[in-house]
Amino acid sequence: MSSQPPHPALLIPGPIEFDDAVLNAMSHYSESHVGGPFVKCFGETLSMLRQLFQSTDPAAQPFVISGSGTLGWDQVAANLAEPGDDVLVLHTGYFADSFADCFDTYGVKPTQLKAPIGDRPQLDEIEKALKEKEYKIITVTHVDTSTGVLSEIKGLSEMVHRVSPNTLVVVDGVCSVGCEEIRFDDWGIDVVLTASQKAIGCPAGLSIVMASGRAIERFKSRKTKPASYFGSWKNWLPIMQNYEAKKPSYFATPSPQLIHALHTSLTQILSKPLSARFARHKEVSQHIKSAVSALGLKQLASKPENQANGMTAIYLPEGIQAPQILPNLLQKGVIFAGGLHKEIATKYVRFGHMGVSVMDENRDDVKRALEALREGLGEAGYKA
Amino acid sequence: MSSQPPHPALLIPGPIEFDDAVLNAMSHYSESHVGGPFVKCFGETLSMLRQLFQSTDPAAQPFVISGSGTLGWDQVAANLAEPGDDVLVLHTGYFADSFADCFDTYGVKPTQLKAPIGDRPQLDEIEKALKEKEYKIITVTHVDTSTGVLSEIKGLSEMVHRVSPNTLVVVDGVCSVGCEEIRFDDWGIDVVLTASQKAIGCPAGLSIVMASGRAIERFKSRKTKPASYFGSWKNWLPIMQNYEAKKPSYFATPSPQLIHALHTSLTQILSKPLSARFARHKEVSQHIKSAVSALGLKQLASKPENQANGMTAIYLPEGIQAPQILPNLLQKGVIFAGGLHKEIATKYVRFGHMGVSVMDENRDDVKRALEALREGLGEAGYKA
Repeated sequence: MSSQPPHPALLIPGPIEFDDAVLNAMSHYSESHVGGPFVKCFGETLSMLRQLFQSTDPAAQPFVISGSGTLGWDQVAANLAEPGDDVLVLHTGYFADSFADCFDTYGVKPTQLKAPIGDRPQLDEIEKALKEKEYKIITVTHVDTSTGVLSEIKGLSEMVHRVSPNTLVVVDGVCSVGCEEIRFDDWGIDVVLTASQKAIGCPAGLSIVMASGRAIERFKSRKTKPASYFGSWKNWLPIMQNYEAKKPSYFATPSPQLIHALHTSLTQILSKPLSARFARHKEVSQHIKSAVSALGLKQLASKPENQANGMTAIYLPEGIQAPQILPNLLQKGVIFAGGLHKEIATKYVRFGHMGVSVMDENRDDVKRALEALREGLGEAGYKA
Repeated sequence: MSSQPPHPALLIPGPIEFDDAVLNAMSHYSESHVGGPFVKCFGETLSMLRQLFQSTDPAAQPFVISGSGTLGWDQVAANLAEPGDDVLVLHTGYFADSFADCFDTYGVKPTQLKAPIGDRPQLDEIEKALKEKEYKIITVTHVDTSTGVLSEIKGLSEMVHRVSPNTLVVVDGVCSVGCEEIRFDDWGIDVVLTASQKAIGCPAGLSIVMASGRAIERFKSRKTKPASYFGSWKNWLPIMQNYEAKKPSYFATPSPQLIHALHTSLTQILSKPLSARFARHKEVSQHIKSAVSALGLKQLASKPENQANGMTAIYLPEGIQAPQILPNLLQKGVIFAGGLHKEIATKYVRFGHMGVSVMDENRDDVKRALEALREGLGEAGYKA
């Protein structure tokens, strides 16, 4: 087990810093994708994902496929909607536009419900929209990586089930799974899609999707063929079921090294109560948000209830732009991300605080980041 | 740099054994996917792929996307054909059926030209088929991993250009790139699609595609939107061009660790003349095929000109089945693959001899595998 060489702390909203044991699992010696040891590892990984989603419903189904978070959109659009179907896309930033584009690619008709930058669509607006048309799916970005806006899933899902019970509730959890609470069964969620490289703490390269029994039934009753081949659940469903039953199975070659790394990160996450993990992310997030306020800076997510617990999107002071401050922070050993929301991209920075940087008591990433931010702004002429 | 712990030699037709340096690159510390160091690594990787394909045409375009070899089929079907188009699929085993299914998913009409098991469609048959209908694409599996049948690309491509000049020549090189000669520009190939985990020698998780300038033009002139979102070249083309120009760019998060590993394996491959690499694979393959014959065993690929140089598919003696011999070989520290061609799956085994097991003079994988095969068959009651 070698530890990592000195390097700047990666504090963007994904990829995040990874634990040594996870990175060591990435260099696992080569194994057959259909051999006993790897099949066991993959099967256990799928079972651990059920625990991560706090799901005990055997009809629910986890999928892990080589790809990225984006592939989860294709899986939803190509398996759970059919050409001509209407879907409602709640917009809290950059990623809803892309998800809508993905639906459109597969002949599905997205209607976007937009909120002002830093806010989220309100329940009464959403309820009104759901009553106007029959939507097969509603999608919500749990944490919008472009703005740091958190959506509230439990109440949203309850309302959708009450007002439009045939509408599947799809959560884009790319920037939330592993740092925000998600009770998949209890909240009546139909799909959570995510990726490996954020709060799950495993290098990028995996699309991770959890589907409810209801979503699987919807898929099975579709009248047209799935609209994607690589992302088709017709191809992947038996493979995932076989792996979890420890039976070798083949559609396309998975990445044994990435699955070993995911196995390692999930084992670490599940070794402690999930509630403590979410509470710790919240605690550190509030500490960061207080420090940002103390610096006289504002967040894109203006209301406290809209603020993500795994990242903070921070408006820079007037006259200081992201391309100016980010290289200075890098000099101080800290990597933040620039803005992603087109209209205001240079006016803000994004600080990711997920996974080991928050959970590992031996790390001082967050402390160093806040110091670097304060110093960097001072060097740019800003006085709090 | 830690070396790998003792483990059975993985001699299946992919994933293959990996070099220590490649596996160590898999555990690279976390980097931003849009930060300078990673952008440089990705850009150099794309440029090295051009060299691997012996291509100097600046209009040609390499793509590296998180996924598997299968995603390359989606890229071809969703970007280079439009619904209703006819395509000709040359069939040498399992993989042509799947590629045809992929085309069908995107509304493209595949016509399969089949050969008997162990053989490949002949040039005169293919020429006849091309004259009967206007095919937008012809696909050929360079090495069919299910049968070990090698197709001849140079003569095929020449004939296609002569007989049907508007037909794009698409090569499935999943089991050939890195161990069989491919002169992309000289042979007039339009697409080679492959994966990382075979003769390229990098862990699974990457779809690698090389497209000609003509293919890119065909893509740009399509009348309909690309039929996949995650596999859309509209989304990926600017990203790949930016990475190679060392400019940060984002569509979906790549896997920095896998790209570092690919960078390492390509650097190793290109450190010696490619001609020597292909010659060495041929030499070792002929040694293996002679040893197999000396054991009184036959190959699925019956004619010498049909035989792949990176794998051998071997019929077992009458009365011995794959599920019987494979566990015995594993006991002796060697992993072969079972059959994949449905009709005869238990009657043969597949021996992969690609990458470091062939090129690294310090390894005795091939020697041990041939000894294990001889002993294993003897213990099962077979006498050569």
